[in-house]
Amino acid sequence: MHHLARVLRLSAGEAVTASDGAGRWRRCLFADGARLEAVGDIAVVARPTPPVAVAFALTKGERPEWTVQKLAEAGVDRIVPMTSARTVVRWEGEKASRQVARLRSVARAAAMQSRQVWLPVVEEVQPFASVAAPDAAVAQQGGDPPSLARPFILVGPEGGWDDAELALGLPVVTLGPTVLRSETAAMAAGVLLCGLRAGVIGNVT
Amino acid sequence: MHHLARVLRLSAGEAVTASDGAGRWRRCLFADGARLEAVGDIAVVARPTPPVAVAFALTKGERPEWTVQKLAEAGVDRIVPMTSARTVVRWEGEKASRQVARLRSVARAAAMQSRQVWLPVVEEVQPFASVAAPDAAVAQQGGDPPSLARPFILVGPEGGWDDAELALGLPVVTLGPTVLRSETAAMAAGVLLCGLRAGVIGNVT
Repeated sequence: MHHLARVLRLSAGEAVTASDGAGRWRRCLFADGARLEAVGDIAVVARPTPPVAVAFALTKGERPEWTVQKLAEAGVDRIVPMTSARTVVRWEGEKASRQVARLRSVARAAAMQSRQVWLPVVEEVQPFASVAAPDAAVAQQGGDPPSLARPFILVGPEGGWDDAELALGLPVVTLGPTVLRSETAAMAAGVLLCGLRAGVIGNVT
Repeated sequence: MHHLARVLRLSAGEAVTASDGAGRWRRCLFADGARLEAVGDIAVVARPTPPVAVAFALTKGERPEWTVQKLAEAGVDRIVPMTSARTVVRWEGEKASRQVARLRSVARAAAMQSRQVWLPVVEEVQPFASVAAPDAAVAQQGGDPPSLARPFILVGPEGGWDDAELALGLPVVTLGPTVLRSETAAMAAGVLLCGLRAGVIGNVT
């Protein structure tokens, strides 16, 4: 109500779309300036398939928030803050909980602003070994083109992956022709996977 | 020399790749800690074709710098800061020159960091009417998939394009399935055009 009345400054009677963040939405009116009145039926939007996910190695300063904002905007379903052998930044204990709570708040706001009816999940910080799932691929120059056959891309820190991490044998995907900063690579992974899923771009033939 | 010695902290004898930013590069050694000694031949890299370009409506705060950094990293050749009917931010006179000089410095640093041998061009701030070239397309939800047939994408401000701008009849391209912030859309345009050009992604069939 504070957001509608004070931030968006809606007038009484203006239309609002309300969503539960799990695929349902409904048209409402900002009734008398103090409450929402539901009008029309509840619409249900199926979750896009396959689910796409990006894990990103922790970076300094505000870059993790920035990364999560952009991934949520792009439409990534699952976002995983990650530590790896060459990750310099560490979030532990109290700090980790606070930072992850902050990232969840950023993801929620970004998904709402980009008018999505499915909220992305932001997971707890996890080490590379726990994140390296069978459907995952690691981002690195010279890899294969990204594809929905591997809808989960892991983006390493500025220092890259170490040999032991690469020795795990996950497929390697490339995100473009240039060397990208860590946070730019994460964003590119989200744009490419969501673009492939939506049919905005295609696979290389 | 300051950058090599004080920022990168190279030791005497370390290898450096030097480029003129116009396609030529050469291996050098950081000789006695105070100068570069050229070793090996001059290599020439052809400019990627077609040239890709992104124009972006001015945004507040540090977002134009951020946008230029990401576009340069992605490999965009020409970056155009733009004003449009609904652009709130204005850069005029002295401020415009200072800001464009700053953007050029950001682009140069980003292209070097991503190890590119062609530096992007950052143009002066121009109004939409001057930017709307025959090979350009405007970014908007519901448009066609991006393609190299239109290697120049114009990204509007948060408020979108006005009717007169759309009435110009430029083709409309979509950058993904969600509504993106202005700076995110610019970045997505760069990633998609450079990815298409490099054969990392393909056109929708």
